[in-house]
Amino acid sequence: MAVRIPFITLTTDFGTADHFVGAMKGVVADICPVARVVDITHELTSYEILEAAFTFDQAWRCFPPRTVHVAVVDPGVGSARRAIVIEAGGHFFVGPDNGIFSYVLHSEKAKVRVVDNARYLRKPVSHTFHGRDVFAPVAAHLAKGLAPSKLGPIVKDALRLALPKPVQTSKRQWSGSVLKADRFGNLITSFPVAEFPWVKDKLFVFQIGLEEVTKFATHYAECQYGELYAVAGSAGYFEIVLREASAAKRLGLGAGAPVELMGWDLPA
Amino acid sequence: MAVRIPFITLTTDFGTADHFVGAMKGVVADICPVARVVDITHELTSYEILEAAFTFDQAWRCFPPRTVHVAVVDPGVGSARRAIVIEAGGHFFVGPDNGIFSYVLHSEKAKVRVVDNARYLRKPVSHTFHGRDVFAPVAAHLAKGLAPSKLGPIVKDALRLALPKPVQTSKRQWSGSVLKADRFGNLITSFPVAEFPWVKDKLFVFQIGLEEVTKFATHYAECQYGELYAVAGSAGYFEIVLREASAAKRLGLGAGAPVELMGWDLPA
Amino acid sequence: MAVRIPFITLTTDFGTADHFVGAMKGVVADICPVARVVDITHELTSYEILEAAFTFDQAWRCFPPRTVHVAVVDPGVGSARRAIVIEAGGHFFVGPDNGIFSYVLHSEKAKVRVVDNARYLRKPVSHTFHGRDVFAPVAAHLAKGLAPSKLGPIVKDALRLALPKPVQTSKRQWSGSVLKADRFGNLITSFPVAEFPWVKDKLFVFQIGLEEVTKFATHYAECQYGELYAVAGSAGYFEIVLREASAAKRLGLGAGAPVELMGWDLPA
Repeated sequence: MAVRIPFITLTTDFGTADHFVGAMKGVVADICPVARVVDITHELTSYEILEAAFTFDQAWRCFPPRTVHVAVVDPGVGSARRAIVIEAGGHFFVGPDNGIFSYVLHSEKAKVRVVDNARYLRKPVSHTFHGRDVFAPVAAHLAKGLAPSKLGPIVKDALRLALPKPVQTSKRQWSGSVLKADRFGNLITSFPVAEFPWVKDKLFVFQIGLEEVTKFATHYAECQYGELYAVAGSAGYFEIVLREASAAKRLGLGAGAPVELMGWDLPA
Repeated sequence: MAVRIPFITLTTDFGTADHFVGAMKGVVADICPVARVVDITHELTSYEILEAAFTFDQAWRCFPPRTVHVAVVDPGVGSARRAIVIEAGGHFFVGPDNGIFSYVLHSEKAKVRVVDNARYLRKPVSHTFHGRDVFAPVAAHLAKGLAPSKLGPIVKDALRLALPKPVQTSKRQWSGSVLKADRFGNLITSFPVAEFPWVKDKLFVFQIGLEEVTKFATHYAECQYGELYAVAGSAGYFEIVLREASAAKRLGLGAGAPVELMGWDLPA
Repeated sequence: MAVRIPFITLTTDFGTADHFVGAMKGVVADICPVARVVDITHELTSYEILEAAFTFDQAWRCFPPRTVHVAVVDPGVGSARRAIVIEAGGHFFVGPDNGIFSYVLHSEKAKVRVVDNARYLRKPVSHTFHGRDVFAPVAAHLAKGLAPSKLGPIVKDALRLALPKPVQTSKRQWSGSVLKADRFGNLITSFPVAEFPWVKDKLFVFQIGLEEVTKFATHYAECQYGELYAVAGSAGYFEIVLREASAAKRLGLGAGAPVELMGWDLPA
């Protein structure tokens, strides 16, 4: 039990119908058989880096220190975009330098390296499947104890996408957006509960699509069927929900949709 | 090899596109890294507790003794519904007290406890994601060897849903239902093979939807293409099947649909 | 660390919504708890053995020697079709004798045995779920170190499907087909890059559906949006792709569709 078990997580848009994920796990098994590989998801929306970054950010913090997290949504595979390794928050992150780790880079002190040591890659490296040829072997070597400094030099210019944050547009009004719709059709907004605590007990309106949401509920079973509510979601943001049904379908909305918040009777 | 490897299974309606399952596995990895986490399914039909209970019941018995099974279909999350831990059949079961373990409670001598010791939960416990904050940490602690008695007191009133059972409606007729449609479109009925063994070699009619099924086959390849058959399914119930096609689509039916069985020439 | 960790892979058409895969993993856990079970995919197209064989072939070679690979697309379950175990390429393969290992049998020196020793099967063996009752327990016993010779006698007539290969139809023309469409809608053709290297730098036309593809790109980001390209795919075959979109949808094609290749100015 004193032996540390190395964990590797995988977060991709590869789906689970092809061989892609299995091939990556085979590469890891071959290099570092003791590593435990855990799937976060392989159903990220292709080409939507920011939505992917958000989903990933909700999972990695639950894992133990020194976990190696591989995240791949990578329309630029094979081009000049770099492969990077990040040390941050006591974890490792491996993936393309395209912003997929933006939440990590915004919230944690991070050391970023470009992977340029071919010794730790699969040979030959294909132009279209770096999940198998670059990211999986690098993650496996890190899980095995390789020092990140062996992989390549530190860089200061890793791509860091601007995170969606509510903007105050008047004394009592803020503009935000939908970060994503989850499996249940709950619409996770960009309004952090911690920054807008008064929504829980003051008058408010979330304007979203063609509707106005004015009721707050602590949990789903408290909601009236058929009525939209705001709840304080487990990701730390307000969510627009519909009891045992999909708010996303009802409103016809998904990631990126605008959300306006208005308040009255606000704390000073 | 003498060391026992603790297994934890997960059965939910969380889907695999979001961070939910990954977050639960992270919590387990952090508390009990040696535990092996196995997915049963994350695609249970939301809000359909009984169908979920049946699917789960088909899997857990295959696992070794002392496995910890987490099952979560939980529209009541955050409300007054309790979290429970069950000891039954040499296994542990962790989930909401909403009937999802009904098959276990009907078939096994069970000791049920309410989880009320906050020490073994994540802090703070959200109102909408007990998979991560309650069930995963409790399962991890059990896998690590925690005595269930540390989690909370024994209760006698755990929710136990009535299981669908065929009802005899006349000398030669029984009313049952479809328990679920599987991936291949096979319709699993509530008629146990062991209770209706004569279906295999006597005259029978399954009335289902707009059709009558009067042929029995041992396995799929024995069926004529395009004709409905009854087979003795691997779950122990008769299934209505269509060779290399979906009986569920052909009949337009799924879980809950009524099925009538008639027999002639029955054994005394 | 000197202990070898046994790996078992699973490749099926069972989907992930039912209990099928979970039950198989439970059986493995019960027999050989130290084995690591890795999913390749459970979303193979039912009844399409050759497409399944191709997908599987892209994954197994990445795993370490002595891995046990279970592959099940099995419309003949319960009939006279045999269960086989193959030793090839330093790996083990377990599944129905229906051609699903055709790529392995074509490329590797193989020893094939029929499984006929009931001792290593689940009791009783159902007629419709050999994944749980035959293939999982056999794989678990192999992972545990069982000699394949204990399972049954060597056979010489294992089913080996003809693999799709381009046929030269004139001096400058070859007929091939689509092996499969992947998650991104890339159409993997049966034209191996190694056999048609001149496509990369000579004049060529891939005729596919109603379109002609005449442009080669090294990677996706090099392609113009909205134009079809040929790329040298990571599976070793030319693929027809559409940047950040689905070539399969644009052309309305999938596995089996014909593809013609024409070349001019070819090397001698």
